[in-house]
Amino acid sequence: MGSIRIVLVGPKFEGNIGAVARSMANFGFDELVLVNPCPIGDDAYRRAKHGSDILDNARITENIREAIEGCFMVVGTSGITTVGDKNYTRIPVPVQDFAERIKDYPENIAILFGREDVGLLQDELEKCDLLITVPTDSRYPILNLSHAATIVMYELFDGKLHKPEPASGDEKELMFHFFEQLMVEGAYPEHRRKDTSVMFRRMMGRAIPSKYEYNTIMGVFNDAVKMIQGKRGPL
Amino acid sequence: MGSIRIVLVGPKFEGNIGAVARSMANFGFDELVLVNPCPIGDDAYRRAKHGSDILDNARITENIREAIEGCFMVVGTSGITTVGDKNYTRIPVPVQDFAERIKDYPENIAILFGREDVGLLQDELEKCDLLITVPTDSRYPILNLSHAATIVMYELFDGKLHKPEPASGDEKELMFHFFEQLMVEGAYPEHRRKDTSVMFRRMMGRAIPSKYEYNTIMGVFNDAVKMIQGKRGPL
Repeated sequence: MGSIRIVLVGPKFEGNIGAVARSMANFGFDELVLVNPCPIGDDAYRRAKHGSDILDNARITENIREAIEGCFMVVGTSGITTVGDKNYTRIPVPVQDFAERIKDYPENIAILFGREDVGLLQDELEKCDLLITVPTDSRYPILNLSHAATIVMYELFDGKLHKPEPASGDEKELMFHFFEQLMVEGAYPEHRRKDTSVMFRRMMGRAIPSKYEYNTIMGVFNDAVKMIQGKRGPL
Repeated sequence: MGSIRIVLVGPKFEGNIGAVARSMANFGFDELVLVNPCPIGDDAYRRAKHGSDILDNARITENIREAIEGCFMVVGTSGITTVGDKNYTRIPVPVQDFAERIKDYPENIAILFGREDVGLLQDELEKCDLLITVPTDSRYPILNLSHAATIVMYELFDGKLHKPEPASGDEKELMFHFFEQLMVEGAYPEHRRKDTSVMFRRMMGRAIPSKYEYNTIMGVFNDAVKMIQGKRGPL
């Protein structure tokens, strides 16, 4: 993927600029350009938290042309979705579809976010190669500026969450074996055992337990089974 | 899908509360509960914009227990992802997987967001059926409170199709009770019972069982417990 540049066009509240910088740090973006922003002071830095470096390094320009220099694709954002296809500059792609589409896109991309009140103007929208939008409740589609930018960056973020090592087939089967033993030794009605066994397996499948979790649950079942079998003395 | 309740636990900045209310309006949520919040004034309303009704109707409670009343599933949020799978109370599901899994979930859900500085405390996390997280850059995983809530609501927005259906958490608690009985009667090592109990609760949370499944598993445990007690009399 090429680099992704976040461009705020005419932001009016420094708090929003700081909040966007923070989200950039959260999602691993670092190229911020501000087109004719309001003055940036304490409030922006307070909201930026660990994104203050990004604020420090933000480039300030007087127009969009300078802001998008070096970017091959220019993407506009809009909360207003025009129904009907006549006003083509206002027909946006949902942000999740956009994220999917640009996964392997090699060129640099600039994403423009408009002013808090009026968004991007018509002539600014016309400069964009495509428009994206965040699907919302139609009764109130206008997101806060930093919220909109945060959702777009979240969708574009490539990182992977650490996932615990899944249980191997053997451990898993052993746990199911002990679950069945528990039904047998517990005199759970015989005619229901098979269905319940499948159901339990299905539930565990959805839970995606780690090895540690399988082993632990297996221990509980095994102890109970042994207790029933009388292989263990009283406490 | 059941109803979804947004619960802010100990929020310290009224601006964040207002910003969350706005996002709730953007994504069609309306049930806001605040546990021991800071005072709510002009700044909250300024940030809430068209979400001010949601602020007006927010319920304020003194503890989480009251806040989650009527919800069958309690979901915690955390920006900290523990590497290694032993600290099971800290193994979260990515929010997009969670949204996918609960698409057809019929019960009411409470989603807890912690304080701006320390998040949810350990004992609060242990009350949760499952933990969710927003995947981020590992160098700075801590999102602003309203950003985190906004992403969670954005992910859940798509799936909001069905009418809420009231439910109680009684069956669930009963199953956990029988699991604990099973450990006691099965002489599962006493010092491990609490951790294993929390781990089991978290696994079940990830599995998102139906009432039928809870009842069925409960039956297996109960039969086994009775069988042990019958073998050598209750402890």
